[in-house]
Formats: sequence, C-alpha cells, structure tokens
Amino acid sequence: MEEWQIYQLEKQEEFVDDLVEFLKIPSMSGQADSFKDVEAAAQWVKDRLIRAGLEHVSILPTAQHPVVFAQYIKDPSLPTVLIYGHFDTQPVDPLDLWDSPPFEPVIKNDRVYARGASDDKGNMLAPILAVESLLKTEGELPINIKFLFEGQEEIGSPDLPDFVAAYKDLLACNFAISADGGQYEEDQPLLLLGLRGICALQIDLEGAKSDLHSGHYGGMVQNPIHALSHLLASMRDDNGKITVDGFYDDVKELTKDERAEIAKVPFDSYKELLNLGLEEFFGESEYSPLERASIRPTLEVNGIWGGFQGEGTKTVLPSEAHAKITCRLVAEQNPDHVIEAIAKHVRKNTLPGVRSSIKILGKGSSAYNMPFDHPGNVAAAEVLKDIYLKTPVHIWAGGSIPICSILLEHLKVYTVNFAFGLSDENIHAPNEFFRLESFRKSQKAYVLYLKNLAKHAGKFSSLGF
Amino acid sequence: MEEWQIYQLEKQEEFVDDLVEFLKIPSMSGQADSFKDVEAAAQWVKDRLIRAGLEHVSILPTAQHPVVFAQYIKDPSLPTVLIYGHFDTQPVDPLDLWDSPPFEPVIKNDRVYARGASDDKGNMLAPILAVESLLKTEGELPINIKFLFEGQEEIGSPDLPDFVAAYKDLLACNFAISADGGQYEEDQPLLLLGLRGICALQIDLEGAKSDLHSGHYGGMVQNPIHALSHLLASMRDDNGKITVDGFYDDVKELTKDERAEIAKVPFDSYKELLNLGLEEFFGESEYSPLERASIRPTLEVNGIWGGFQGEGTKTVLPSEAHAKITCRLVAEQNPDHVIEAIAKHVRKNTLPGVRSSIKILGKGSSAYNMPFDHPGNVAAAEVLKDIYLKTPVHIWAGGSIPICSILLEHLKVYTVNFAFGLSDENIHAPNEFFRLESFRKSQKAYVLYLKNLAKHAGKFSSLGF
Repeated sequence: MEEWQIYQLEKQEEFVDDLVEFLKIPSMSGQADSFKDVEAAAQWVKDRLIRAGLEHVSILPTAQHPVVFAQYIKDPSLPTVLIYGHFDTQPVDPLDLWDSPPFEPVIKNDRVYARGASDDKGNMLAPILAVESLLKTEGELPINIKFLFEGQEEIGSPDLPDFVAAYKDLLACNFAISADGGQYEEDQPLLLLGLRGICALQIDLEGAKSDLHSGHYGGMVQNPIHALSHLLASMRDDNGKITVDGFYDDVKELTKDERAEIAKVPFDSYKELLNLGLEEFFGESEYSPLERASIRPTLEVNGIWGGFQGEGTKTVLPSEAHAKITCRLVAEQNPDHVIEAIAKHVRKNTLPGVRSSIKILGKGSSAYNMPFDHPGNVAAAEVLKDIYLKTPVHIWAGGSIPICSILLEHLKVYTVNFAFGLSDENIHAPNEFFRLESFRKSQKAYVLYLKNLAKHAGKFSSLGF
Repeated sequence: MEEWQIYQLEKQEEFVDDLVEFLKIPSMSGQADSFKDVEAAAQWVKDRLIRAGLEHVSILPTAQHPVVFAQYIKDPSLPTVLIYGHFDTQPVDPLDLWDSPPFEPVIKNDRVYARGASDDKGNMLAPILAVESLLKTEGELPINIKFLFEGQEEIGSPDLPDFVAAYKDLLACNFAISADGGQYEEDQPLLLLGLRGICALQIDLEGAKSDLHSGHYGGMVQNPIHALSHLLASMRDDNGKITVDGFYDDVKELTKDERAEIAKVPFDSYKELLNLGLEEFFGESEYSPLERASIRPTLEVNGIWGGFQGEGTKTVLPSEAHAKITCRLVAEQNPDHVIEAIAKHVRKNTLPGVRSSIKILGKGSSAYNMPFDHPGNVAAAEVLKDIYLKTPVHIWAGGSIPICSILLEHLKVYTVNFAFGLSDENIHAPNEFFRLESFRKSQKAYVLYLKNLAKHAGKFSSLGF
C-alpha cells in the first residue's frame, strides 16, 4: 500500500468531518437569504484548499456569487488540468418531505444525508483531498493542477462565461475535469463523450381581438387552438421525426463504432418503462431509445395553453393560443439556424385567420462533443477500469451542462466528467445523500487519475507558463 | 288611433317608472347575496301582473329561484300562447367600468341604463303592458294568454326542465313566444327559425407518471402535447371540415329556399371583420360565413393546456395534456352519438406512448328548428313588416337558447322569438341599456301580434281546457 493510500485511510474520519462541516453551510445560490452562506462556503473552500497545500488560493468576485481559484504548478512543461466543481446547492423545498433537516447532515448506513451531499459538495471535495494526500505524503503532484469552484451552478452559471473569458490566462489548461456529475451504476463506470445543445422559443397565435362566443362565431372564425394544433402536428411525423425543413441539416450520423459504444450502455428497457409508468417508448424507429435521447436532436413542446382551463364548460372561441418549445441539438446544429428554420415553418404553416409570431427564449447553445480518444479520456478510462474491474461505457447524454460549453468556447479545452454521484442519490430532491463508499473511491480515483495523466504527459502540448 | 294605443301613449311615463322600479331590484340569480332580491323581483312581477288584470297570478317554487305564472283564458276554443321571459339578471362585474351604478337606473337620450334593462326586464315587461292596455280599453284579450317568467335564466335554467315537466298541464299552449332576445338592427326585423344544439367533452392524455426532463427523455418518450396536437389536428381538415367519422351523419342540407333566406340577412363582412380584428373569415368554403356559424355543425376547442405556462423556459417533457371541446349541432344530430363518434376517433387516433380518455361535460342538447310556415311565425312576420315597413329576415342562430328546447321537449310546442333588444345594448357587460323607443315599440308590437294571432286562429287546434 502506498503512502498516500495510508494517509487517506488514516484521515478518512477527519475527511468525513470536513464534509459534514461543509454540508452545514446552507449555500443555496437561488435564495437571497442564503447569499451570505454562499460566501461562507467560498471561504470554507478557500481555507480547505490552503490546508490541503494549494497555492494562489483566492476568492474572485463575479456579478453575483464568488469563484474560488487555486493552483499547484509543478513544472510548466507538464500537462495542466483545471478541476471544476461547485459549492452552491439547490433549494430545499418541499422541506416537510425531508427525514432530517437538509443542512444538519446525518450519517446512516455509510451514507451522508444533506442538501448538496452528492451535488456537488461531496464530489468536489474529493479532488481537494486527493491532492492533499499526495502533497502530504509525496511532497508534490505528478502534473500541474488548477481548481475552479463556482457558487452559481444551480442558477445556471449566468456570470461564468464572462468570468472565464476575463480570466482565461489564469485558467489556461490542457483540458478540464468536472467533479460535478456521476457514474452509471455502482458497478459500471462511464465516460461522457457528448451533451446536446439547446434552443428555446415560444409560438404565439392570435385570432380575433377578444374571446368570442363559440355559438355565434363557431364555424366562421379561425380558432387559434385548432391552428396551433395543426402547426405543431405539422412539425413531427408519426414516427417522431421532425418535419421542419432544414432541421436535420447539420446533424451527422454517428459512426458504426460510436453506435456500438452506445449499444454497450447497460439499459434495462423493462425497468425503465416500469419507472416511467409507460408501456412503450416512442420515437424514430431506426434509432434505439438511448440514441434518440442522446445523439438525435429533438423538438419538444414543453407547454401549451389557450382558452378555458377551468372546471366544466365555457363555450368560448379563444382569441389566443401559445406553445413553448425547446430543441435539443446535436453535432453541428446551430441554435440560431434551428430557430430560423422553425420560424420559417411557422410562417409557412400558419392557417388563414390567425397571426403567428415567435419569441426566442434565451441564447441557446450548440452540442458539446469530445473526441473518444482524447488523452484525458483515455487516461480516465484506464483508471476507471482498474477501480471497477470493468471497462467504462462511453455515453452521449441528452441534457446540457453549461460548464463544458463555456470552457470549450473560452478556453478551447474539453472537459472530462470525472465524478462519482449515482442517479438514485436524490439530487434536487428531498433526502439527498452521498455514498461514503463513493467519497472514498473518488479520493483514490483522483490520485490514480493524476498519476496516470503524468504517464500520458507526452500527448499534451506544453502551455509554457 | 285605437283606444289601446291612446292608453299606451297616456300611460307611457308610468310604464317607464314601472321599468325603473323593476330595474332597481338587484336580482342576480348567480350571486348568493342576491337570492332574496330574485324573490323580490318575482313578487314585483306578480304584483304587476295582478295590476295588469291577469288571472291565477302565482309564484311557484323550483329547487332554486321561483317562477311566476299568470293566465287569461278567454275561450278554450281560441289559440293559447305562452309568453316567456326572465326577471333575473347577470352579475355586474367589473363594477368600475359602469358609468352609473348598475341598479340605480339612469335615463339618458331616450335610453334606460341599468343591469337587466335589455336582458330581460325591459323586454319581458312589454307583453304585460300590452295585455294591460287591451284589458283596460277593450275589456278582453283576442286570444288566450299564459305567462311564464323565470328567475334562473342567467345561470342556465337548471330547474326549468323539471318545472315545465311537472306543470305541463298548467302550461299547455299552442305555441310559445319568448320575450327574451332581440332584433337584427333598428330598421331590420328578424324571426328566429333555428338554434344549434350542443355537446361538450374533455380529452385527457396521460404519458409518463410524472413530468420528465426533456434532455434526458426527449426523443425516447411520447410527449402528450404532441400527441394531443396530432389528435386535434386529425379532427379537422384545412378547409374547416370536421374529419371525425360519422360526425355529419344526421346533418341535413338546407333547401335552396332556406339558403336563400339566410342570404337575405344583412351581413356586412367588412364591418364584421373590423369589429373582430380579423383579416378574413375561415371555414368550409362551400358555405357562406353566416351559414357556417348557424346551420353547419362545429367542433371547437374551447381550451387547451399542458406542461409549463410560465415566464421563460422550463425543459420539461410533460406527463399530461388536456383539451376541452364543444360541438354545435344542427338538424337531427344527436349529442350522444356525436360524443360517441368523437370518442371512437380519439381511441383510433391516439399515438403510441400515451393513454387517452374522454370526459363528457353536461347533458348536451339537440338543435332546435321551427317550421318556416308555422302560423306563429307567419303572424309575427306580418306584424313585424307592418311596424318596420320591411320584410323580416329569417335566421338560424348559432347559439343555444335553453327555453326553446325545454318547451319543445316537455310541452311539444315551438317558440317564436319576439323581442326587441338590439345587439349593441351591452347585455352581460357594463353599461347595459335598453332603448325606450324599443320599449314603446314592443308594447305596440305585442298588441298587434295578439290581435293578428286571433285572425289566424283557424290554423291552431283547440286545446280544450
């Protein structure tokens, strides 16, 4: 057993105490009452980084919540990784569904229960402790490290793009590692190769200038709800394929190898359908359900409304109807082009008797895709295989993680997701918890990852600080 | 000038005072606070009928608001008409949009402003005053009269079907006249030949057992809003024709003569579109706009909802979507059959991945159609032509008037709509008013109508009281 391993073993109780202390800070970034606690969490992280032996530890302001930065530069010719995490948490409502108060951590069955335990305090503390265990036992790190911890991830990181752009020299690195996320199952490691982008819009249809009596005008005047149904129905065929002209223009088909990777992901259809309360999946039959939800773009109506929604009947011919849509984007799809294609489709397919308009909601983002053979991935895969005794699966996830796109845009680097949360840990829900088994495993994994990256050092270019 | 005309002239100021007194009673049948005032209005009507010289004047209870009955039977071998009206009113909200308090009548420019002035106190008082002017000057009426005034029309007459069924002998008549309604324009009389029926339902689509993240599941799981749009779009073609199998089964094409009657109705498309804030009408191109809104059935979505309706974006794949539908029915369409046809269509056109169900809302009613050459219509047309110096147009209206169907079902009689409200009199809205010109005209018209009915007496069968 190596020194750093013995250190981690001996210190484990203290590390758990550290985590408990960290979890007691109610650093909810979306609640004005808790803004001071977000600052307190930043201060706690700063102190912990200093104790761990990091250098240049500093709290840097943004328009809202501060960022904590630290680094350890061993040798400018070695690879430099930027490790990312966040110390803010989701809110706690509904409070009455918690078995214990969300900011009074409880340890039970080798799990710690508290808001932020898995997302992301437990996960982000692990690399700090890993670095400490190396510095305290070997006196140095095998490669260069920078830490970037933010306090606004749970509100969508609104100030992070500007922050990263402003500090791009300070944050310069060969690639990033995100300690926010997780693994597929307790015995199945994963590596994330891609995320879908997103764009959002609202469609508004307007008919007569006020609601009309459906007896007096029904049959004579266009009904905006009918027109909206017609419009939405015209956007998708019965197989789930989007029928908006140009929608698939910049979508690339995956290679056989990539599809083979997706096929390796353990996916229990029966269990998944049972969880969802569904009898069958739906969508493009030429793709598997997992493919449809990850490497295929979507056009999804998130909400619809118009006319009377109360009890009973109101014989109204409504004057308006509305729908909200988000598209998940893949490959080279550009959010602005997709919005334009939809806008054109709306103009072309609006039935007579109503006026249509669209409202673009938010900025949108392109898909994020990382090369399969990126040395950061290769090194991570080797470590995960050693720890789990199982080859990691490579997945494309259907959602969006802002940090990956932000770092790619402003620092021109990819992000390896290297974290150990599990999907049943109630993140964003009552009774969030983190497995202490995962906490220990992640400390070890980070040490092994850093050491393995040193072995792959030749594949990275020098940043020349 | 005949005696009864002189009487009406001399008494006109008193009649207007009567109307003002009647309008001061806040008899809003839908407001629990006003239930006593509905009773007070019934008492006022009873007293006024007695003063007018009617017999058997009585207040009869229903489950909610009372009915006032009166009669004058001259000779069982003469025709008997049942004159209908209602003494309850709509509520008054929004109160701040009224120029004067709704139950403090104001007379201005030969109009009386108050809630209920046109709908229906002014209109229902006229036949009472007409009967009084005949009884006080000629000592008798030319035919037999019964009065049925209700106090719950504005809440949909829920107890009237049972009441009419229970009192069908008391109410027996050759046909009915409704003093609730109006004329087309100040210089254009109309007679109503038909009303559309109605049936109502709600469609509920259910997908996964809870809302899902559109990033994680979008593309894999059916979206109930998409499925609902598909379903609603499948019910109507782009020309506005309903594509539900069996929907038109019991619809009869109108005769050339009937369509020619509709074509005579003055209908200013340009003015109507301007009022509606529309650029064009919509619907079955082989029918005129007026035909589509009166003698053609409709399937109209009155409301739709599902998913996120707030500000901005929520990336939700909703678990439910809902729509409310009412159909306007014509000719022999049976509301139950139409609901069944739609239910079948829903079952057949529900996309995979969602469960659909329908909820029937209310009892529904068939269309009401009265023969063009009914002697009640013929006699009314002659009187209207004498008064307006213009042939009345015959219209089929797109809405539903419960009393017509109730009397047809339980008394087996048709109802001639003979009233003098005009469409600009703000009924159901702030600043309702009634033209005193119409008030005087209607008193005269009712006398002439009763006298003319006596001339047509031979066309009616004896009821043999």
